[in-house]
Amino acid sequence: MTLGKVVGTVVASQKEATLEGLRLLLVRACDFDGKPSGSAVVAADAVGAGIGEVVLYAAGSSARQTTVTKDRPIDHTIMAIVDLIEVEGQSRYTKE
Amino acid sequence: MTLGKVVGTVVASQKEATLEGLRLLLVRACDFDGKPSGSAVVAADAVGAGIGEVVLYAAGSSARQTTVTKDRPIDHTIMAIVDLIEVEGQSRYTKE
Amino acid sequence: MTLGKVVGTVVASQKEATLEGLRLLLVRACDFDGKPSGSAVVAADAVGAGIGEVVLYAAGSSARQTTVTKDRPIDHTIMAIVDLIEVEGQSRYTKE
Amino acid sequence: MTLGKVVGTVVASQKEATLEGLRLLLVRACDFDGKPSGSAVVAADAVGAGIGEVVLYAAGSSARQTTVTKDRPIDHTIMAIVDLIEVEGQSRYTKE
Amino acid sequence: MTLGKVVGTVVASQKEATLEGLRLLLVRACDFDGKPSGSAVVAADAVGAGIGEVVLYAAGSSARQTTVTKDRPIDHTIMAIVDLIEVEGQSRYTKE
Repeated sequence: MTLGKVVGTVVASQKEATLEGLRLLLVRACDFDGKPSGSAVVAADAVGAGIGEVVLYAAGSSARQTTVTKDRPIDHTIMAIVDLIEVEGQSRYTKE
Repeated sequence: MTLGKVVGTVVASQKEATLEGLRLLLVRACDFDGKPSGSAVVAADAVGAGIGEVVLYAAGSSARQTTVTKDRPIDHTIMAIVDLIEVEGQSRYTKE
Repeated sequence: MTLGKVVGTVVASQKEATLEGLRLLLVRACDFDGKPSGSAVVAADAVGAGIGEVVLYAAGSSARQTTVTKDRPIDHTIMAIVDLIEVEGQSRYTKE
Repeated sequence: MTLGKVVGTVVASQKEATLEGLRLLLVRACDFDGKPSGSAVVAADAVGAGIGEVVLYAAGSSARQTTVTKDRPIDHTIMAIVDLIEVEGQSRYTKE
Repeated sequence: MTLGKVVGTVVASQKEATLEGLRLLLVRACDFDGKPSGSAVVAADAVGAGIGEVVLYAAGSSARQTTVTKDRPIDHTIMAIVDLIEVEGQSRYTKE
């Protein structure tokens, strides 16, 4: 998975029928400190993530291995909300 | 999925038989304001998107999880037409 | 799919048995004008493409969704020969 | 697979149910000498890897081909702990 | 597939059980002349490739479509040893 920060939302009324009911969030890849540092993807939310939270998202066919996204045309899914990132024994990010 | 802007079309008469009948659109990755900012892909259209529209497209095996693209050799599919992009509480793109 | 230009061929006598009989072409990603602009891949040919032609190729598991490549260890397949590329209402490439 | 160095851990209490019980490690791509040189991913651990070890990790659907990760939404898995890297006849990395 | 040059080997005694018996080679992406030009991957060998040889390797789920790698957690497999690379009518690489 990839570390990302939820930065926004996307609304789309005209869409593939099987996307109906999914929450679509804008997520930017982030560094160990939780600062956005990379490109953005639009991910389905499987865990109730909110704007500003640091999350883990999976890409590719792995993004469909949840009850929420199974058989849906989703290639990125938020799988977890990060509590703590520890690098070489030091805490780098802690959820407030 | 990835935010993209539909910028053109591709016509190909000599092709894999299972591509017959699919509409193939040129899509460039775009930023939160809907401005093209990245490389281009050729995507199948599952939602009736038009030139100039900001869309969401899926890549990889997820691109085949629609009735239009199932079992076809398609690796990018336009899944939704974007109405609104909101980043950190601010509207960044609104469909006209 | 990705726009590419066929630039060469690869010959390999010692290979996985299931690659036998496939034509392997060197394809470089190209821009809207058909000029090579990116990196090269070795793709199986499903449509009889020739050197110098602008083509569409699919990557990943989608590359195996043809009768020619099914169940074979192929990750890039040429799916179509491009006749016309039109960007924002202007013709950018026409097959001669 | 990709050469990587385990640099840290990620803790997430709110997550997809099927991630329960998996150990999630931060892995940075590394060079032939075992020095981190690239971007980081969060990988499931299938072999009991520890911080500072050089490992091999698989990405995509291949990451789910283990008994630990089967059918789980995992797109990167640590598959081996590296003992030795030899390049052009010279030893470049040896596990201590 | 991708053109690569075999540059080394990786030894790992502690690993996923299903990797047992696979030969793991370091492969760097190479240009049309067979010169290493890109990043390195660790690939399973399906054809008996040796150090210094120019090969074709497949990535992703395609890497598992061989009898050697089927159902194993492998995301890169060497599928062929290159004899000849010809670009725009000129021979660029010939196996010695």
